[in-house]
Amino acid sequence: MLYLNLNKQQGRSICQQIYEQIQNMILNGELKAGEKLASTREMARVLNVSRNTVITAYEMLASEGFVISIPGCGVFVNQGAEFPKAPETLIDYNASAFSIAEYKQDHISFDSGTPALELFPRHKWNRIASQIFREAPISVFGYDYPQGRPELRKTLAAYLKKTRGINCHPDQIIITAGAKQALTLVAKCLLHEESEVWIEDPSNRNVKKIFSYHTSNITPIPVDHEGIQTHMLPKNRKPAFIFVTPSHQFPMGGILSIQRRLELIRCIQEMCCYIVEDDYDSEFKYKGLPINSLYSHDHERVIYIGTFSKILFPSLRLGYIVLPFSLVEQFREWKRLTDHHSNSLNQLALMRFMESGELERHILRMKKVYLKRRNYLIEKIHEYFPNAVRVIGEAAGMHIVTEFSKVNFSPKIIEGIKKANVNVIPVEDHAIVKGRHKHQIILGYAHLEPSEIEQGLSRLKNVIDLSTT
Amino acid sequence: MLYLNLNKQQGRSICQQIYEQIQNMILNGELKAGEKLASTREMARVLNVSRNTVITAYEMLASEGFVISIPGCGVFVNQGAEFPKAPETLIDYNASAFSIAEYKQDHISFDSGTPALELFPRHKWNRIASQIFREAPISVFGYDYPQGRPELRKTLAAYLKKTRGINCHPDQIIITAGAKQALTLVAKCLLHEESEVWIEDPSNRNVKKIFSYHTSNITPIPVDHEGIQTHMLPKNRKPAFIFVTPSHQFPMGGILSIQRRLELIRCIQEMCCYIVEDDYDSEFKYKGLPINSLYSHDHERVIYIGTFSKILFPSLRLGYIVLPFSLVEQFREWKRLTDHHSNSLNQLALMRFMESGELERHILRMKKVYLKRRNYLIEKIHEYFPNAVRVIGEAAGMHIVTEFSKVNFSPKIIEGIKKANVNVIPVEDHAIVKGRHKHQIILGYAHLEPSEIEQGLSRLKNVIDLSTT
Repeated sequence: MLYLNLNKQQGRSICQQIYEQIQNMILNGELKAGEKLASTREMARVLNVSRNTVITAYEMLASEGFVISIPGCGVFVNQGAEFPKAPETLIDYNASAFSIAEYKQDHISFDSGTPALELFPRHKWNRIASQIFREAPISVFGYDYPQGRPELRKTLAAYLKKTRGINCHPDQIIITAGAKQALTLVAKCLLHEESEVWIEDPSNRNVKKIFSYHTSNITPIPVDHEGIQTHMLPKNRKPAFIFVTPSHQFPMGGILSIQRRLELIRCIQEMCCYIVEDDYDSEFKYKGLPINSLYSHDHERVIYIGTFSKILFPSLRLGYIVLPFSLVEQFREWKRLTDHHSNSLNQLALMRFMESGELERHILRMKKVYLKRRNYLIEKIHEYFPNAVRVIGEAAGMHIVTEFSKVNFSPKIIEGIKKANVNVIPVEDHAIVKGRHKHQIILGYAHLEPSEIEQGLSRLKNVIDLSTT
Repeated sequence: MLYLNLNKQQGRSICQQIYEQIQNMILNGELKAGEKLASTREMARVLNVSRNTVITAYEMLASEGFVISIPGCGVFVNQGAEFPKAPETLIDYNASAFSIAEYKQDHISFDSGTPALELFPRHKWNRIASQIFREAPISVFGYDYPQGRPELRKTLAAYLKKTRGINCHPDQIIITAGAKQALTLVAKCLLHEESEVWIEDPSNRNVKKIFSYHTSNITPIPVDHEGIQTHMLPKNRKPAFIFVTPSHQFPMGGILSIQRRLELIRCIQEMCCYIVEDDYDSEFKYKGLPINSLYSHDHERVIYIGTFSKILFPSLRLGYIVLPFSLVEQFREWKRLTDHHSNSLNQLALMRFMESGELERHILRMKKVYLKRRNYLIEKIHEYFPNAVRVIGEAAGMHIVTEFSKVNFSPKIIEGIKKANVNVIPVEDHAIVKGRHKHQIILGYAHLEPSEIEQGLSRLKNVIDLSTT
């Protein structure tokens, strides 16, 4: 008779325990093929459990092939179910699972792109989201439109027309999980192994990584204070697309002049290729109104990417692409195969948040806050580093670049800065051709209170003073 | 003097209107390079607006390069800003943007995989989600862990241990946007152009599409009533991985026997390749307890994929992968580059929903409902089609396969069925080697009320009777 160790307090049903223990005995060879199990009646009596429990456990074992039931004879251990277990490898895993740094309480990070989350109108959003969840029709909970909810796309088209000069049909929009997914879809749909891509240099390092999966043929085009230098585009060659951030070049902050905009448009029209326009933070333009998008000059050859990460909150993971009609079907199919669609309830909450005017009110409020923080940062930079720095790219967005004429931001000094509980990213990290931006760092300010800005700069000064003496 | 048409009721600021109208005149050549604009003072007087408004508009035009301001001389139209607009192409786009069919009210769809959404405890979820949104620390709103929230991964690891025999560390789990994204990551990380993949035939057609992007080397392995036929695996070749649905083969419904499970494990251990185990609906097993996963036999070489689409609701878009430690870093980096991470607030709501026991209660309730619906469907099938059908794969899940010995489900007859307001998917649609499943259709039942099941079968019978006479 088998020895089974049943335990009523274990949180697993008796039936499950019988099933598992017999299964383990078969797997590890304690019970051999051909051996007969006790009858269900006898097993139930010995274990003092109901016979039905044993019957169910035996049926489970049989349905998986561990045992075989021969009518009139009994239940036997089946062939081929023995499997000597490898010695359990100890889990000696020590590495952190997390690739975003866990900062200490006192850490000041000048990372770019994080909004002032403490000022996000959480209660307003929550009220709207909760109402949507209560009232949404059942179909919104099922598999949904890969392209995104039609209501959101309609609202977004109207918003883009009003704020960005973009005249598009809601069916030209695909709702994505942020701008990163939009870039992934662009790469998947437009790039092949032989494709050439032209991108701004420096450029967000993730962008190059995403494109590199599909092609190694990536040509950097240098930028200056006005953005991508169009006269340096290669002649007699043709890329699949040119990647640009014309409204606020990342990271250098230039705003592309109208002359270069038109040059770019002429260029892609001649070559019959595309522009991918990443408009990640142009809502926060501090002088005058946002500049019209490149898309507004050519809606057949410009692919426009936008995100709600900066104007709402990053962990929402919602962004969008505006596409020429000719590309919509292909992109939609890949969005479907990638993750089917983005969370529908979040999409509808966003739609309602926009419709109620809350989005534009929030952007307006944030623009004022960020302008103040930017001005404070610039003022303090000049105070802490008089005559030693130049501020670049401050006309828009959530970060500036600061050039320290006498400091070379080597990995060593960046490490020293980190040890002083400050985080800054050197522009070199985003450069494709290395060596041109050694003296520049990116300072994101949107999420920092004035006191944090001052504290951060003060620590930075200590490290820099120490390294230059 | 320029003629500007300002309109105070237009919803755009006066400054914006001045800026746009002058910009358009420069672009379309009405204002030529070198022309002088009226002074800000004069323009303000003529338009009867404040001078500051005009100054701002001029500054915007200058910052974008449309005009150039020469101190002491005035403001002039810049070179190279003229761009004859192409005649506006009419948007003659008629195609529907939506790839999921818009069914009429009366349409009955036997699609597989959609749960009974009307029974989802929407209010409980909403209460939890709303509380999470109110109480979450600010950091949850920012850019978050690419691998997924640690709290959710911890809860999930405990759940998998309890329900699926999976013994894993939370750091082996990556939270994904549903199973589709998990498959996309698998393909991205494990496949190259020369890679070979072995997959069950038939198999969900999307799976093959996802893998095909990376390799054309896909070998179908036929399944029978016990799942993948391990004795038909090719000899002397080695795939990157074998894709299987051992708990409930999709679509044929077989449950892989222990002998074949062990054969598979031996096979991949010998070849040093991986198994990708897609466990999409094993929570709903109608006889006995869920079968242990393949993962439980080898956690070094089995990649386990699960989803919340079936046990909660599809538009939530949350699923997961359990990976060998050796693959975690690579997968996490690609998750980060794909969409950074999945919505954090949804992840935390899910965690709390699981912690509160609501998930398991919901699954238990649904299992009872689906069992009833399944039994009703099978009973009615035999009633409507006596002696003409065979039901396959009914031991688990949310769909069955029905084989009609005398009906060939050609595109024509499927079209006829659709015209009768019923939707069924032929198994052939999912077959890689065509011609073996002509008589079989998939009938999903989880989301259908008994009256809908009966109505759907009655319509199906009419079409089939008509086509066979």
